[in-house]
Amino acid sequence: MRHAVSLSAHGPAFGVNPRVGCAIYAAAADGSLGELIAEGWHRGAGTPHAEVDALSKLSPEQSRGATAVVTLEPCNHFGHTGPCSEALIAAGIGRVVYAVSDPGQHSGGGAERLRQAGVTVEAGILVDEVEEAMRVWLTAERLRRPFVTLKWASSLDGRSAADDGTSQWITGTAARQRVHEQRERSDAILVGTGTVLADDPSLTARGDAGELMPHQPIPVVVGQTAIPAGARVLHHPQPAIVTASRDLPGILGDLFDRGIRHAFVEGGPTLASAFIASGLVDEYLVYLAPVLLGGDGLATGDIGVHRIGEARRLRIDSVERLGDDLLVVARPVSAAHPPTGKKK
Amino acid sequence: MRHAVSLSAHGPAFGVNPRVGCAIYAAAADGSLGELIAEGWHRGAGTPHAEVDALSKLSPEQSRGATAVVTLEPCNHFGHTGPCSEALIAAGIGRVVYAVSDPGQHSGGGAERLRQAGVTVEAGILVDEVEEAMRVWLTAERLRRPFVTLKWASSLDGRSAADDGTSQWITGTAARQRVHEQRERSDAILVGTGTVLADDPSLTARGDAGELMPHQPIPVVVGQTAIPAGARVLHHPQPAIVTASRDLPGILGDLFDRGIRHAFVEGGPTLASAFIASGLVDEYLVYLAPVLLGGDGLATGDIGVHRIGEARRLRIDSVERLGDDLLVVARPVSAAHPPTGKKK
Ligand SMILES: NC(=O)c1ccc[n+]([C@@H]2O[C@H](COP(=O)([O-])OP(=O)(O)OC[C@H]3O[C@@H](n4cnc5c(N)ncnc54)[C@H](OP(=O)(O)O)[C@@H]3O)[C@@H](O)[C@H]2O)c1
Ligand SMILES: NC(=O)c1ccc[n+]([C@@H]2O[C@H](COP(=O)([O-])OP(=O)(O)OC[C@H]3O[C@@H](n4cnc5c(N)ncnc54)[C@H](OP(=O)(O)O)[C@@H]3O)[C@@H](O)[C@H]2O)c1
Repeated sequence: MRHAVSLSAHGPAFGVNPRVGCAIYAAAADGSLGELIAEGWHRGAGTPHAEVDALSKLSPEQSRGATAVVTLEPCNHFGHTGPCSEALIAAGIGRVVYAVSDPGQHSGGGAERLRQAGVTVEAGILVDEVEEAMRVWLTAERLRRPFVTLKWASSLDGRSAADDGTSQWITGTAARQRVHEQRERSDAILVGTGTVLADDPSLTARGDAGELMPHQPIPVVVGQTAIPAGARVLHHPQPAIVTASRDLPGILGDLFDRGIRHAFVEGGPTLASAFIASGLVDEYLVYLAPVLLGGDGLATGDIGVHRIGEARRLRIDSVERLGDDLLVVARPVSAAHPPTGKKK
Repeated sequence: MRHAVSLSAHGPAFGVNPRVGCAIYAAAADGSLGELIAEGWHRGAGTPHAEVDALSKLSPEQSRGATAVVTLEPCNHFGHTGPCSEALIAAGIGRVVYAVSDPGQHSGGGAERLRQAGVTVEAGILVDEVEEAMRVWLTAERLRRPFVTLKWASSLDGRSAADDGTSQWITGTAARQRVHEQRERSDAILVGTGTVLADDPSLTARGDAGELMPHQPIPVVVGQTAIPAGARVLHHPQPAIVTASRDLPGILGDLFDRGIRHAFVEGGPTLASAFIASGLVDEYLVYLAPVLLGGDGLATGDIGVHRIGEARRLRIDSVERLGDDLLVVARPVSAAHPPTGKKK
């Protein structure tokens, strides 16, 4: 399964397609895995799924009785390609081992179909590792809304601006470059109308020299206030989505329907606090600059916590020094969503 | 010199006495250091200084023409013990190598006295390492006030209390135990009257099982408000100093005169902000708990910064994970004091 996970990493990083890997092993007499005979992974919409990709490298003799190890439960529906369950059955695969159940409304049921056809099926192998590797996609599919990464940059004492509102350059170049890389890995980048009106940001993902990166997230403006026709975000390489709404669950549902699975929320403080208060954040990226600001320019405002017992508890995944700054990556301790579909 | 620095670490950790180490090497024909023949360090008030400690292990024949490597310039005054400069001259030491000049008002001038007596003197060797090892004591001696360590604990978004003022247990046991160790290494622990009235803290340094640690910092209450006779701080193992004042430089000067060289400021937010605003902090210990609180319970308030250009810039010395929490250790970038006495 570890090998299948490493194969899955070749897959697409954005959008509706999961990263799935598949390794096929020859049948061994004692029931253990035999020789590795084929590898496959899913390359994105319209291309074969990982199982079909791996099977395509085998003759009917080779696949007969072989074991397919795959990170995600084989799908059971006709999309761009036929169901993987049928392809595995047709190839005479004897055993299928997978980690995580398919959360898809239309694509689930593959394991059941395989069992009906007499294929041995084992589920839940290395499930924690695969859950982690597919975290963004699985969270989005299960909740039918994009996985939400919330980023902010603040001073060590929690301010994102000085008293007079000035905020430029709190963090250094290494931290700012990392933000561009994180933007690039997202499907959409969300800001409040307040930030658009105050900063007129371009919301593009740019490299060291200011050049546009190959993949650009779709800019999304959240809030009811109209924004000026000349706003930079309206001249982004991707057509901007101007929501004219404050309804965060509604906006996220709409983004999901448009194929967005990973939303990068860049603030400002009002929008960030609204996301936290609504329990809609799956990942926090907190950049801490080694400065003290004091005053009223807070990075978070009212997040719905009034007593210490109501504090939003996070778990720190990593702490990294980026130039003079720190990047703290954390996630909610009690997940923003009910944990579903997770096997032992 | 590295060896002398390691010897110095045996010295006293508190109060007026510097940690000084001395290594004596036999004279070598080519001017290089010969064999190590004696080691010494200063053990605290009333005991021999490092040089005299090392010399005491040598016969007059051995010390004649030898080289003494010492972390701090040999002193030149009669205190509990005679001047080290005279002891080195009397022992016939041929060469003295030291790192940092003696900042003492009464004890300086040792190098000059040695040169007058025909001893070869080299200063400024490994000065950065020794400055770092003696940072607390040197800062205090140069500024004639205690070295100030400011500690606070906050949420990742910079709050030390929830909206309703509740604040207990923001950080976990590992972080709280570390705070007790840091208290133990200090000469005095400072809090504002606000904290005494709100929390009635005992301000003792305690071990895992709640037992008192061997060394207890002197509790100091800062502020004009009278505190109740029953306050726990008045029943501390060390008699408390109740300043009845808000004059931070005056209070620090008084503490220096009482022999206090390291002050540990534990807050609350008002006192912490006053120290930051006055530029009186030499070291920051910021404990960050993996929670979000939002609201008004800020860890810092008005620190005198109104525009982003006025931000107090820090340099992060270390970041450590303590249980679920983070400890960020930082220092001011432009030192709270003019850098003096530092040789290249
Ligand atoms: N340090 C950082 O990481 C960072 C990042 C971004 C921005 N900033 C700074 O933040 C400042 C702007 O702050 P801001 O708080 O005004 O900006 P903001 O959060 O971008 O925008 C606030 C606006 O978002 C709208 N909104 C959308 N959904 C909402 C909801 N569910 N609840 C409440 N409001 C919602 C509201 O506008 P409507 O009235 O239009 O509905 C609200 O006024 C700028 O100075 C910028 O430089 C800092
Ligand atoms: N998270 C943490 O690390 C931490 C640590 C300690 C306390 N706390 C919390 O902090 C809260 C108390 O907050 P606080 O801000 O009222 O406490 P504080 O900072 O301990 O005390 C504030 C008082 O200090 C006095 N003061 C002394 N020198 C001053 C100066 N130069 N400038 C201004 N004031 C000066 C003033 O009292 P006078 O009017 O008497 O002069 C002022 O009202 C408590 O709830 C406690 O739990 C948190």
